[in-house]
Order: sequence, then C-alpha cells, then structure tokens
Amino acid sequence: MIETPYLLFLGDAPDQLAAKVAQGIKDWRPDYAVGHFRLEGCGADMGLPDMTLAEAREAGVKTLVIGVANRGGVISKAWKKVLVAALEEGFDLASGLHNLLRDEPDLVEVARATGRSLHDVRVPDRAYPIADGKARSGKRCLAVGTDCSVGKMYTGLAMEREMRERGMKASFRATGQTGILITGEGVPLDAVVADFMAGSIEWLTPDNEADHWDLIEGQGSLFHVSYSGVTMALIHGGQPDALILCHEPTREHMRGLPDYKLPSMESLRDLALQVAHMANPGCKVVGISVNTAALGEDEARAYLEEVEGRMGLPAVDPFRHGAARLVDALEAV
Amino acid sequence: MIETPYLLFLGDAPDQLAAKVAQGIKDWRPDYAVGHFRLEGCGADMGLPDMTLAEAREAGVKTLVIGVANRGGVISKAWKKVLVAALEEGFDLASGLHNLLRDEPDLVEVARATGRSLHDVRVPDRAYPIADGKARSGKRCLAVGTDCSVGKMYTGLAMEREMRERGMKASFRATGQTGILITGEGVPLDAVVADFMAGSIEWLTPDNEADHWDLIEGQGSLFHVSYSGVTMALIHGGQPDALILCHEPTREHMRGLPDYKLPSMESLRDLALQVAHMANPGCKVVGISVNTAALGEDEARAYLEEVEGRMGLPAVDPFRHGAARLVDALEAV
Repeated sequence: MIETPYLLFLGDAPDQLAAKVAQGIKDWRPDYAVGHFRLEGCGADMGLPDMTLAEAREAGVKTLVIGVANRGGVISKAWKKVLVAALEEGFDLASGLHNLLRDEPDLVEVARATGRSLHDVRVPDRAYPIADGKARSGKRCLAVGTDCSVGKMYTGLAMEREMRERGMKASFRATGQTGILITGEGVPLDAVVADFMAGSIEWLTPDNEADHWDLIEGQGSLFHVSYSGVTMALIHGGQPDALILCHEPTREHMRGLPDYKLPSMESLRDLALQVAHMANPGCKVVGISVNTAALGEDEARAYLEEVEGRMGLPAVDPFRHGAARLVDALEAV
Repeated sequence: MIETPYLLFLGDAPDQLAAKVAQGIKDWRPDYAVGHFRLEGCGADMGLPDMTLAEAREAGVKTLVIGVANRGGVISKAWKKVLVAALEEGFDLASGLHNLLRDEPDLVEVARATGRSLHDVRVPDRAYPIADGKARSGKRCLAVGTDCSVGKMYTGLAMEREMRERGMKASFRATGQTGILITGEGVPLDAVVADFMAGSIEWLTPDNEADHWDLIEGQGSLFHVSYSGVTMALIHGGQPDALILCHEPTREHMRGLPDYKLPSMESLRDLALQVAHMANPGCKVVGISVNTAALGEDEARAYLEEVEGRMGLPAVDPFRHGAARLVDALEAV
C-alpha cells in the first residue's frame, strides 16, 4: 500500500497525454494530489501548485509518484537527481514504469540508507494463492470489454465516485498499473504468474459487508487473443454479481491485431455471462458503457439510444453523461 | 533444450507413482532412458538397468533427470550427494521440482566449476513475446478437458506416437513440467507471466510444413476457475485446427473444487469451439478421449459407445484401446 498524499512528478512530459497517470490521480483521487513537480521543458500541467520537495514535505506529502511515462525506457540523469533528492527528503517513491526503480542501484542504496520504500507497481509485491473458487460475501461488479482500452478503468472509477456520493459502500479494485497508482493499492494482473492470476483477484476482493460493492477494474477482452487469458482469470477470480459491457464504436479492428474484428456487444454479453456463471450462477449483465469520444454529441446520443433499445440495458458514456444510470442498475441488483 | 539421453534419478521414491516423471520418459521417449539410479529403499523400478554414474557416462548419458517428486520440498543430503557427483561426472541436471536447482548454492557452484547446466523446467528459461495472433503455416491439434488431470498429456503423446508410426509429421509440444522433461523442451505455461502466456504458445508452435501437426499439450480447463485463464491463453496462442475433448467419467467434482460440478462434454465442445474460432475460424472438434481407468472393460466399451453415438465423434480411451481412431480423425481434417 502506497502512503498518501502524493507529489506528482511530471518530469519533462512533452504534453498532457504523456502524464496520464498523474491526470488519473488528479481526476480520481484529488485529495491525494497535493502538488506537482515539473522539470525544464515540461508541457503538462495538472492545474496543481508547482512544489519544491521542501514545500511538498511541508504540505504533508508522503510519496513522490512518477506520473509520466519515460521515453526509451531509461530513467534519465535529470529524473534520477530528483528521485534521489526525494528519497533524501523523506519521501517514498512509486512508479509504474517498465524499468523498475529497484533495478537502479543508486536508488536502492539511498532508499536503504534513508529507510524509504520503492514501490514498483508494474510487478507484484507479494505471492498470491491459487484460487479456491469459494463464494465470498459482499458484491462485485466487473467491466468487460469488446476490446482492450475501451474505458473499463474509467467506468469503474466513475461508478465508484457516483456510489460514494450516494452513500453506497464501494471500492474500486485496481488490476493495472495506472489504477494501482491512483488508488494506492491493487494487483498488477498482467505481471502475475499464470497459475496465480485468479487467486490474486480472489485476494483483491475478499469477503466484505453484504451491501458493499467491489468495482473490479477490467483488463483485456475475452475476444483479444493476446490477453484473453487474463480476462478469463479476472472473471473467474472476481466471481462478479454484475457485469458492465464496455465498447468503443469506431474501432476498426482489435487493438494491435489488424486481422481481428471486434465482436458484437451481443457476443460479448453471451460469452462473458456464460463464463461468469461458472463461478457465480447469479451474475447478471446490468449495463453498457460506451466510449463515445470519437462521436459528436447528437451522434453519441443516437448511438446510445440505438444500443439501449437493441440490448434492453441502460447504455451510457460515463465520461460524457455520468455513471448515474449504471449505478441505478447496480442498486436494482 | 535438454541434452539426451538421460539417466533417470529415482532417489528414494517410495513407490512407482512417486516416480511418474521417470515413468513418462520411459513410456514415451524410451530412447532417452538409458538407465536409472536408485537410492537405498527405493520402491520404484522402471525396468531399466541400475547404473552407476560412471556406467551411465560410458553409455553416453548427457543428463541426469530427477524423475521423482521430493517429499516436503527439500532436496535431501542423500540426493544432493548424487547430484553433485553427477555434475562432477560431466552430466547436466534437469528437474521439475518446485524448489529449484538454481536456488541451491552448492549445485550452482559445482555447475559453474564444471561448465554443466542446471535445467529447472518448473520456470521459463527465456522471455516470450506478446501474442500477435497471426496465422501460421502447418497444423495444430489441442486437447481440452472438462477438468484438469483427465488425460490431456497422455492423449497428445499417444497421438504423436501413432502418427509417427504412420509416417506422419508430428511433434508433441509440451506445456507442463512432466511433458518438458519427457520431450526435453517446451513451455512451463503455468509459470509464465500473464501477459506472455498466449505469446509463449505461439513461440512454441511456429510456422511449419503444411502437413506437419503440432500436438499441443493441454492445461487446466475453461471450466476450472483456478486455471481457466491458462487454458484460454493456450487456445488463443495455439490457434488449433483440431480439438480433442478429454474427460474422466467418474469424477464427482472439479479437481480441488468440491463445490463445482464438471461440465457436460457438449458444453465443453461448444465453448472451446467458440473460443478457438476467434483465432482460427476453421477449427473443428475431431474426437473424444476418455480416461476409463476407473471402469471395467465392458463398462468402458459401453460408455464410449454411448458417448460416440451422442456426440457424433470418435470416442476412445487411447491408453486402453490406442489412439488410432483419433489420428484417423486428424487425417480427415
């Protein structure tokens, strides 16, 4: 578990998109985002105060989070200088980079000397059990997609926010690096060893109060041949009571697979439900989340209406129109 | 790749079952099995000559294979003495034990000094790519099961033998520890990191001659919630042209999951085919392999006949009656 609040390190991010991890934290856990730290030439801006390390310390920051992707997979000298200084200032470091903090001998040495922690959320920080398939108390909702990167994380976070605003008990359960940095905990499922995938999700979503919902972050797609095994384990380990179907309507082929067409939402519904029923016979598909970013407002409304009529389920773009109707559907479960 | 032939180390195996890895090598790669090495009190016998290390060397052995499970997960002093002597005698070591040879400092040291290799087939020995889903030349057959441990490995090996006897081009592709020790190569799929599972199977079953068959060793089951993700990745990475359904008719619940009933063979057929068609629209279910060990001969025959009539597919127990009819079905593809 990563200690909060955070100072968001934006480094020399060329633009806002390169700092999407920081943006996610700012959007979804604004209380965690006290300030940001930018290097010369940084083109990203989180709308937060620029802070020196000393100022951040004064403001109560516990962890410096790398909120930007590094180019070429190398931690540059300019970055390293800040990271070392942050450890010396008394902060932990947290990173989702492919190249790990723990593989940098100078960072390891300073962290040891100062008693600070290096959180590499790219890889698991513990051993997980093999799944036992036992029913657990509390309720679980999982977003499943027709493809990768269709808005599953966003959907879960938006639903969690709406549910908390309504006074419902809800926990977003991160299964990817960005989600883990946003919430401060989770399972980096794509880096878990095959035998322990489903067990890691059981561990992540344990017994809970009967009216508590885990909103499990989806990964991959049952229809994406590179990652379908990850999605399968997520469904069987998560034992969801409710599924949200996620879709991006303008995509021409599966992400990264030019020869593969996207499945229909009907196919996704039927397959995901069949698979989910093995672990939880009561599971229902309760709603549809569409990423309509590529459509105009009228076009988006018309598309959602068509989908809603065809599928007989509430269909919304939670970014554009809020997650209220998806949460209504969960409340009705 | 493990160098052959082998001396099979049976250690102090209490009985034949404890030495099932050695038995598998003896059964399926008899050319690799030159002799066995037994300690005081060993209750297993492969019907091979007992050999000293010097005799094994004389006989051309290249690798000492640990063909037995160790009790308690500790490599005992008595074993260690033999393993060290084997390295000094000039043999490589190969093991599928959970506790790795490479984690034993004395073995590492002697291996380095003697220039020998320690093959721990429990874990991957290389990095695998992410699956790209591209069609490959050559043909592939995969065994899928209603449950774990229903005879998938045996089915693949029996089909490979039959095919080679007919002069067909066939390669058993091991995806588990025992299979890897039997054939000397493969992918320990259950130990591969999630993101690379499907890619590891693409790597294992590359482009080949148009009339060559890979017989891919199955793992887990789409219906086994602990391991279904592994099976899913195997189907999507393997892109099979043909599926063999495997079943054990007397099992009362899914292995290790008392609350889970086995699916019907019809459910397995339909789900496996739907999933396989995503990666290879031409895939067909061609036959059924039943492990009838728990049935008498008449009962087994009656059961197979009933299944064959109901499913409209050849149904055989390859251990009891040979794999010929399964191979006939492959030849017809």
